[in-house]
Amino acid sequence: MSATVITLTTDFGEKSGYVGVMKGVIYSLYPEARLVDLSHQVLPQNILEGAFLLHTAYRYFPIGTLHVAVVDPGVGTERLGVVLQVPEIGYFIGPDNGLFSYIVANHPTLTARLITNPAFMRLPLSNTFHGRDIFAPTAAQLANGVAFEEVGPLYESNNLIKLANLQPTITRNLEGEVEVLGQIVHIDHFGNLVTNIPQTLFFGLSDEQLSEVVIEIRVKLGGPIAKIKGISKTYGQARPGELVALFGSSNFLEIAKVNGRADSALNTTINQPVRIITQYLNFRC
Amino acid sequence: MSATVITLTTDFGEKSGYVGVMKGVIYSLYPEARLVDLSHQVLPQNILEGAFLLHTAYRYFPIGTLHVAVVDPGVGTERLGVVLQVPEIGYFIGPDNGLFSYIVANHPTLTARLITNPAFMRLPLSNTFHGRDIFAPTAAQLANGVAFEEVGPLYESNNLIKLANLQPTITRNLEGEVEVLGQIVHIDHFGNLVTNIPQTLFFGLSDEQLSEVVIEIRVKLGGPIAKIKGISKTYGQARPGELVALFGSSNFLEIAKVNGRADSALNTTINQPVRIITQYLNFRC
Amino acid sequence: MSATVITLTTDFGEKSGYVGVMKGVIYSLYPEARLVDLSHQVLPQNILEGAFLLHTAYRYFPIGTLHVAVVDPGVGTERLGVVLQVPEIGYFIGPDNGLFSYIVANHPTLTARLITNPAFMRLPLSNTFHGRDIFAPTAAQLANGVAFEEVGPLYESNNLIKLANLQPTITRNLEGEVEVLGQIVHIDHFGNLVTNIPQTLFFGLSDEQLSEVVIEIRVKLGGPIAKIKGISKTYGQARPGELVALFGSSNFLEIAKVNGRADSALNTTINQPVRIITQYLNFRC
Repeated sequence: MSATVITLTTDFGEKSGYVGVMKGVIYSLYPEARLVDLSHQVLPQNILEGAFLLHTAYRYFPIGTLHVAVVDPGVGTERLGVVLQVPEIGYFIGPDNGLFSYIVANHPTLTARLITNPAFMRLPLSNTFHGRDIFAPTAAQLANGVAFEEVGPLYESNNLIKLANLQPTITRNLEGEVEVLGQIVHIDHFGNLVTNIPQTLFFGLSDEQLSEVVIEIRVKLGGPIAKIKGISKTYGQARPGELVALFGSSNFLEIAKVNGRADSALNTTINQPVRIITQYLNFRC
Repeated sequence: MSATVITLTTDFGEKSGYVGVMKGVIYSLYPEARLVDLSHQVLPQNILEGAFLLHTAYRYFPIGTLHVAVVDPGVGTERLGVVLQVPEIGYFIGPDNGLFSYIVANHPTLTARLITNPAFMRLPLSNTFHGRDIFAPTAAQLANGVAFEEVGPLYESNNLIKLANLQPTITRNLEGEVEVLGQIVHIDHFGNLVTNIPQTLFFGLSDEQLSEVVIEIRVKLGGPIAKIKGISKTYGQARPGELVALFGSSNFLEIAKVNGRADSALNTTINQPVRIITQYLNFRC
Repeated sequence: MSATVITLTTDFGEKSGYVGVMKGVIYSLYPEARLVDLSHQVLPQNILEGAFLLHTAYRYFPIGTLHVAVVDPGVGTERLGVVLQVPEIGYFIGPDNGLFSYIVANHPTLTARLITNPAFMRLPLSNTFHGRDIFAPTAAQLANGVAFEEVGPLYESNNLIKLANLQPTITRNLEGEVEVLGQIVHIDHFGNLVTNIPQTLFFGLSDEQLSEVVIEIRVKLGGPIAKIKGISKTYGQARPGELVALFGSSNFLEIAKVNGRADSALNTTINQPVRIITQYLNFRC
């Protein structure tokens, strides 16, 4: 049998050696680990972006993969540490602060346990680095065959913290048009604005109907609104410098600037609202 | 026998989890993989820089290594996907857009095949992420022992797309001096400007002759030209703040600023021309 | 027996493929390697930061780990290459320029050898990339079982280069207060200023006494001094935007700005002095 894959998602950056230290802890307890960095550039303390990145990535890993995620503004306070066991997928290990919101929404049959057993921890615990002291060693020990039941008591998955506004809201306005109100949940390396508006909402629309959808991005709170008309199929359809909306590789709506950065072009950032107005959308309010 | 090494070179950055997803796909199909990141910070869509980075790195890997490269502005269009089999080296997998120009130039006996067999792909294909859907799974399956012949039909290597100006041009001017016209093909982490002008051109010149070579860097199109006199042996020969030209670890001419960044000092960037004028160079026009 | 872990710490950045090339060299000589990146974002040529990052990380790795570190402003000059063998820890491989200052201070019983045996090198040596040509192949061969004695002659550990001011100085001022004079030795991904002032100095102080300690950070040479009163237990105790001093996960004093960057807030940088004044500190001059 192959060794277990353990992925790491944090807001630690690559500079300070924090991620390397977590890997040292894992290799010390589970030498066979196959380690994958998902991202260590989650915006500092931005739980939503961390949750979204996990959401778009975890399905591409082998069954049984352990996903360790640490975006943890509440470290050192009373927030809980959890392990989620998801059938046919694997495990998710990290703070209970909403980081696993999409996982919980996608997998209602998951089983959650609190991490309370000191045998899974490096002692004495620090107040600031539970990635090293709790989450990495818990993952390594689970990978090494220690039973999930040993981690700690069962925790009702309804009690897990979930972020608000994970999914866009859909309403019909006075003119009878459908409005989809989502938000920017990730800004990628190219400056593309990735929203939480899924392609599935638009299934059944013709290319012509898609070309008439209007997308509005509120640039800053109280600031101007940028408009894009139409959802494109590829970047190649637009001219350099043009803003385009299209469905990205994870099947969510993205705003991109051809050969440029949409984030600086629009001076916008994560968590800003994105509104779609169309008369063609199937009503799903 | 040891597991196969698979390297990854992209312009995806480390932020969005795209590289992690490619690794998840690879581990799902070929659990034993030994994965190495060459660079994920190729300038967005800059095929030349990606090609150059591959060129300077691939010879340091074990025979049989699979090099996956994805700098792919044409993704979703008609551009082809290819695998190059290079005897005594290994395989190169990615879009046919010039990314393997140096490999093709260096290894005329390579065998190319188009990737057309759907068994090598994750279906349905996305329009935007063939790294995940085609190139990573192709690499994993080849590493796992599926025969190269299964990938798709042979493709005439003369038909592979090759970038222009890979090599500098060499001419003699009216004064009888030799002019070498190259370009900046990479800017490294230190801000050093790496050119495509190889050290081999200068073999046989004495230290005194090297010290009289003149290097000109055109700062921006139509902008001023910076001049450096002499090619140094090490950074240590110059004073802090000084611009120096020297042959870097990959045996190409580099422009560096001692204890500083040459790119910002010169306000220049990739693809800008670099001209060398010398009366001493062996004439090789 | 599990394969050996080899860690890499450099100032090479992740862009140019230099680190990937070192991994190619290692895998070519020692295919089973388990590779961990500690950091490749050490400030360019900042030996102190590299030394500090190693210092805070190496204890978390399995016994026998090989730590390769390359922050090497003197590459190509007469500076020596060394291997340190540290009982119950592992090996440290890199230039003798102070990068291992903390290791030498922590482990007086270590054994040092110069790397002089050409069998450990890739020849011909470059003048600029001993990470690839000497340190990576030395690590790989040691991991592969070649005897430490083969590397080269013993080197008196007292002769290893050590950085000044590794530890803070402690004096009593005219008012009878204790002054601790340290410096910023690392700036992390969040902009936190990490000092070389250890928590152990403050053992035995009550929470109330800690809350009266005064920390001064000199912003720039000759510039103003920022003051913080009190050492906090967690970030959560302060308000957003506030500067706080606390002991970080590696048990050194850090200056942080809650939900912000202390480095830009204070316009300070590495190597700047940090002074602590307290009447409560145990006198340890």
